Formats: sequence, C-alpha cells, structure tokens
Amino acid sequence: MSDALFTDLYELTMMAGYLDAGRAEVEATFDLFFREPPAGIDVVVAAGLDPALDYLEQLAFDGGDIDYLRAQATLPDRFLEWLPQLRFTGEVWAVPEGTPVFGHEPLLRVTAPLGQAQLVETALLNRICYSSLVASNASQIVAAAGGKPILEFGARRAHGPNGALTAARAAIIGGCAATSNVQAGHLFDVPTSGTQAHSWIMAFESELEAFRAYARTFPGRCILLVDTYDTLGSGLPNAIIVARELARQGHRLAGIRLDSGDIGRLACHARRMLDDAGFADAKILASGDLDARSIARLEARGAPIDGYGVGTALVTARHDPTFSGVYKLAEIGGRPVLKISGSAEKTTSPGCKQVWRRDSVDVIGLADEALEGQPLLGHVMAGGRRLTGPVPLAELRERCLAAVAEMRPKILATGFQVRRSERLEALTTRLIRQLRNGSAKT
Amino acid sequence: MSDALFTDLYELTMMAGYLDAGRAEVEATFDLFFREPPAGIDVVVAAGLDPALDYLEQLAFDGGDIDYLRAQATLPDRFLEWLPQLRFTGEVWAVPEGTPVFGHEPLLRVTAPLGQAQLVETALLNRICYSSLVASNASQIVAAAGGKPILEFGARRAHGPNGALTAARAAIIGGCAATSNVQAGHLFDVPTSGTQAHSWIMAFESELEAFRAYARTFPGRCILLVDTYDTLGSGLPNAIIVARELARQGHRLAGIRLDSGDIGRLACHARRMLDDAGFADAKILASGDLDARSIARLEARGAPIDGYGVGTALVTARHDPTFSGVYKLAEIGGRPVLKISGSAEKTTSPGCKQVWRRDSVDVIGLADEALEGQPLLGHVMAGGRRLTGPVPLAELRERCLAAVAEMRPKILATGFQVRRSERLEALTTRLIRQLRNGSAKT
Repeated sequence: MSDALFTDLYELTMMAGYLDAGRAEVEATFDLFFREPPAGIDVVVAAGLDPALDYLEQLAFDGGDIDYLRAQATLPDRFLEWLPQLRFTGEVWAVPEGTPVFGHEPLLRVTAPLGQAQLVETALLNRICYSSLVASNASQIVAAAGGKPILEFGARRAHGPNGALTAARAAIIGGCAATSNVQAGHLFDVPTSGTQAHSWIMAFESELEAFRAYARTFPGRCILLVDTYDTLGSGLPNAIIVARELARQGHRLAGIRLDSGDIGRLACHARRMLDDAGFADAKILASGDLDARSIARLEARGAPIDGYGVGTALVTARHDPTFSGVYKLAEIGGRPVLKISGSAEKTTSPGCKQVWRRDSVDVIGLADEALEGQPLLGHVMAGGRRLTGPVPLAELRERCLAAVAEMRPKILATGFQVRRSERLEALTTRLIRQLRNGSAKT
Repeated sequence: MSDALFTDLYELTMMAGYLDAGRAEVEATFDLFFREPPAGIDVVVAAGLDPALDYLEQLAFDGGDIDYLRAQATLPDRFLEWLPQLRFTGEVWAVPEGTPVFGHEPLLRVTAPLGQAQLVETALLNRICYSSLVASNASQIVAAAGGKPILEFGARRAHGPNGALTAARAAIIGGCAATSNVQAGHLFDVPTSGTQAHSWIMAFESELEAFRAYARTFPGRCILLVDTYDTLGSGLPNAIIVARELARQGHRLAGIRLDSGDIGRLACHARRMLDDAGFADAKILASGDLDARSIARLEARGAPIDGYGVGTALVTARHDPTFSGVYKLAEIGGRPVLKISGSAEKTTSPGCKQVWRRDSVDVIGLADEALEGQPLLGHVMAGGRRLTGPVPLAELRERCLAAVAEMRPKILATGFQVRRSERLEALTTRLIRQLRNGSAKT
C-alpha cells in the first residue's frame, strides 16, 4: 500500500471527474492557509513543509492501491487505468518552516495540472496543519518560560506513533530543547531527555533505595523524581542523602524533578533545602500537566525552576486543538477564482499570490507584482522535484526562535498589520461583483 | 529503525537501572487506566487494544537502534549488550475494544518481568489513549445523531498520517458508518465516503456545468455540494436541474451536501425544494465544523438531514483533546504497591485486579476474588503471544453500539456505580497506613 492512498475519497472522485471532463491537465493554483490562529496563540509558526515535500516527491499509486480501488467499484475504469502513471509534476512555493505567519497568507502555493493539485489536498493539510499547531504551541510555551529549556514529553498523548513523531519534530522547530521520544531523537537527530517514573521508586523497597540504585547506574546524570510519597518530607531529604553519597564519589547530583502539588511553593522549598545542603548547582525541573499559562504564572512568581517538561498540553494543544488550515483553488487555466458562500470572512483570495513582509506590515499581493519588502514564499519545488534538501532541525529552531523574538513584541505591543495589495483588492472586488451578477452560477 | 525505539527515554534509563540493580527480571504488574473521562463525554469506550497487542508481539530492538543508542553515550554498555535479546514475554489481560469503561478501572493489565513491563508504557499509552478518545467521541456523536450515519472526515486535521488512520479505526469502533480516508478504508476494510469539494465547483466555468460534469462521471452516486456560491439561490436550483437530467437517463440524484450557513434552516428549505421537484428520495447530508452539540441541536429541531460528516471535532476532540490514561505499577515481586503523593484522587490501586460488571455497578476487585458479575478483563496474551486474532472492525462496531445503547441510559438516568471490593479497599487502606508510617521511604 502506498502513501498515495492517504487521501480523502473525494479527491479521487474529483480527479476521475476532471479526467472525464477533459480538465485533469488544466493548470491550477491552490493556496494552503488558515483564517484565524488557534485560541490562545499569539504567534503562529509555519511547520511541516519538509514532510509535505517528501510526500509530493514520492507520490505514486502502486498495483495494490489500484486493485483495492477497483474492488470498491466506485471509480471508473478509465480513471483507474490512468492513475498508475500519475506523478506530482507541479511547482510549489512556500514559507520556510519556523516562520511567523498570519491568517489568510498562503503558507504553501501549489501550481500543477488540476488532477494532481487536487489529489494532494488532504495529505498536504495533514502534514502542515498539525505541525504548525504544535510549533506555534511550542513557541508560546517557550516564550512563557522566558528562555528556560522546554522538554517535549508528549509521546503518550499524541495521535498514534506517527503523530508523536510529527509532534516531536514540530516542537523542536518551535523552540523546545529536547524530546523524550527516542525514535524522534534518532529520526530527527535531536536531543532526548528522560530519567525515571514513579514506578521506578515504587519498584524498590524504599524511595532511598530507589534513588541510590538510579545514582549507581547514572552517577553523572542523576535527576531524581521526588514526589512519589512526600516531596518535602521524604523526597528531598532522600535526594540530599544521595547527593552527598554522589559527592563522595566525585559526582554532582544533576537535579530533581517535581511532578505534582503546588510546584511553585515546592520549588522554593526544594531550592532552599538543596542550597543549604551545598547543592546550589542541582537543577530543579518541573512537569505534570503544565502549559503556557501555568508556566507563565510560575515564572511571574519567580519560581526557582530551571526547566519544564510539557507533554499533553503541547501535543494535544488542549487550549484549542484545531489548526483550521484550508486548501483553496485560487486560479484555474489562468483564470483567478474565489468562493463567496458562507460568511464574508470565508471568502477566498483569487489569483497566484505572494506575501511581502516589511517592518510592521505584511502585504498579500499578486505574485507578478513588485512590492516593497521581503517575499515570504520561496520556490521550493519545480517539476515535482525539490529545489533544496531538508534544513537541519537545529537550524530551523534557531531561525524560529530569532524570528519569533522579533515578531512577538510587534504583535503584542504595536500590532502587526496584514493587508491586501491594491491590485489584489481590485481583482477580488471585481470577481465578487461578477459572481453576484450570477455569471458563474449557470 | 524498529518500533521498539518508540518510547520515552526514561523507560530505557529505568530498564538500564533495573538491570544494574538485579531487578529487570522481577515480575511486575502494571495497570493502564484513566481517572476522569474527557470533558463532555458521557460514555467512555475502550479502543486501541489490537494495535497495542501487535506492538507487544513485534517488540525487538534492531542493530541500528542499538548503534544509535550507543552513539548517545547515555546508557551503560552492559545494558546495550543485553537489549538485543529482549522480547515481550509477559501476559496481558484487557477489556475488549468497544466496551464502555469507567475511571480507575484497568483497561489493560500487563504482568511481565519489570524491565519489559516498564519499557512498553509509552507505546501502550500512545495506542490506547488516543483510540479510546476518538471511539468515545464518535460514540457521543453517533448518539447525538440518533442513529443517522456519521461519516468520519478528519484526515486533514489529525496528528499526521498515522494519527488519521488511528482516528479512522477508532471512529468506526465508536459507531461511525464510514471514513473519507481511502488508506484507512483499505487497511481496515471499512466503507469510504466522499464526493466533491468547493474547488470542484470553482474549477468549471459555472456551478451548473460543474454539477453536470460530476453527474456524467458518477450518475449512480451523485451527491452535489450546493453551497459554493448561493445555497438556495443557485446551488439547489442547479442541483434540481441535474436531478431532472439524471432522471431522464434513468438515474436518481443520490443527494446534496450542505457545508456552511444555518444548516438547519437550509436543510428545511432544501428538503421542500427537492420534494416539490419530485426528488423526495434525494438525501441531505450536512458537514462543516459539526460536533455532538451542534448535531444534537439540529436533531432537536427536527432538521431533515439524513447523515452527517464530522471531521475536526471528531478527530481532534476539540471539547477536550486529552484522554489522560496512565500506566501505574500495582504489584512487584508479589508485593502490592501504590503511589500516594499529590491529591487523594491520584492515589493508585494496589494489586493484580479484575473488574466485575453487574446490572448497575462495576466492582473493581483483586483478580483472585470470586465476585458476582461478568469479568471485564479477558486474557488476551500469554508468553508474549496473542491468544486470539484481531476482531473485524464491523463486529467491534456492532458490539460497541449495542453495549453503549445499554449503558448510556443507565449512566444518564439512574447513575452507574463503580466501587472497590472489600478486600481491595482493605488492602489499599493498609498500604496507605504503612506508607504514612514511613516504611517505604527510607
């Protein structure tokens, strides 16, 4: 089974129809964009481009796919005979991963024969929407932590194994420092992080014995989970006993982890106990259902926490798990088009577009305009082949951190404007008038 | 790279420590359970068991995994030499997929050498949590629709491609009638559904021409999307023109789809227009950001809708995207254990357990008790091998629909009780007292 089958059935029925109608080869341009950022997200960060381009480059139906489709008896034979030769031969312009983006700006623009350009809708949205959601979410959490490291702990809560890998990759782009997911570490060459769970403590006769056993195996990287029984009453005192034993062997306790209770208060007590015992260098990590809001509160209280593990809230985006990306036809056979039904807010933008970024404004214009500013969409695929290889995640992360650091204050303080160019505005108005006059309906 | 690497790093550091401490082979029992249902979910439906058992049966690290882990220089050599021979040899008891379950009841119980039982935590939670979330969510939406078919349209919003497949499978278990995802249709042998998008309409010179083209290719299964320009002003009249043309060729228009606007009002108008034109057999499908609540409202108003497509709300579980499953040590080396830190609500249940279901009460007891009722957990794996093959999804779906139909009224009307057996209660009390006395801490 090939990944080409990963598509909504309607993409196939439409392709079959386009082929019948002689329109499968007409050149079409689609935009992938979102309208509103997910709730609670100040800066939306584009991500998922690299997996999207991989998908496009490898797109091909195999014999098993065709056999399956034929057995369903929903699609015409002529289409099923045509399908095996299909490859993606189009061109793609896109915003680089890690770039802050705004509603209605194309993150990705596909120009290809209509059949191909339509087919890839589902897979492209699948690759871009969730990645952009997690990267945006990670960026928000990283900002809340004021630059302290955020560790992504979401593998158990993501949508299946591949969902967790997608999340880990996007979280790093958004600024996370490491993932707990070892497979993601290997696949994407990013740092991994992890020590022990409550079950480790419970698997020994006593907490102290459990701490000692961990320190024996990992004397140089020993972080102890102190909240299994009684954080301040037993966890911290036992951790300090082990820290002294490690010190006698020439090692330093790397730190402790708090995973429940009033984390801010416990961190203050823990810091004082560790400092008083001579372990001012032992770090305090916090985890346990944290999100951007709770981390911001801890930071505002000046909690002496050195890093945060975030799982559920990061990968499920509990505040708003929906990145409502859409993929809309903008031009067909050289003719710019738009959709006007539903609310005015849902009217799409016609034509082949580019976005120009200036200091405090983005202008969405037609691609053949020469506007002032930095064009956001770059040419990433021609004739169905990538024009450049993947960018290392560490580099995407650095770029994203820098770009968000520049953009966030503009959005929060002075406001950042997004507007359409005069030509795009005029084209839109003209097409809406034509549609209202009914010329496209019958 | 094998799927064995899909795990949180701390599972590996713990395994390495257990091996060093001579505890890797001590027999341990873990429970996988949740505490509170996701917000807005009346009946939680267990799902994801089949992929979980597949993972356990195939668990093995390959040479590339070991090379990667060695290059990280975090894990001891002795552990990396031991790891390649590791297989899952334990036993699993589990609640069948599609069964209604309650907080604190084990959905899955793993008994295995501690090293193995610990390793599989992340992957088991990943398989079970999200599947159970979507199955529960699907079940809620199916109930809201009062038995009308629900089509799963979520591929574009799920966490990556595999997330979408996981969602499609769980949605069918929860009662959905079909998926839009063709790969899911093939993989799981379930019905697929889909017709055309707004881009189809926009790709032709006019809406009427677009409808006619679709009807030419799919005369026997023609469902027309009527809201691209003006639902009642052009979409419906054009659909009726095409319905008449189809009728002249001996076909019947299968239906129309509404995807925006005031769906209830539009459905009433559409029904009247279709009926008046002699197409009372044409179905009305609705989609467009629907969820259990909006569907329940439409049904309460008696909207003449024959089926619903649900995407985002179903697969992202927007009302609450978190199924907070946990995996907790319950017994080690024959010694029942529990964790008491954090809130009382988070105290875990000790010992090897079973759940007995009676008419209006579930009793969680110790596995060696002989309690009245139907035991919920069945023996599904012994010596690391599955005891039965996978159950066809269509069968799981039927079972789930029947079980939920029986359970939902009990929960909503009379209340359904979950309690612990006297022996489990006494054991829990005794262990908490011991812990409070400090015997497990030092």
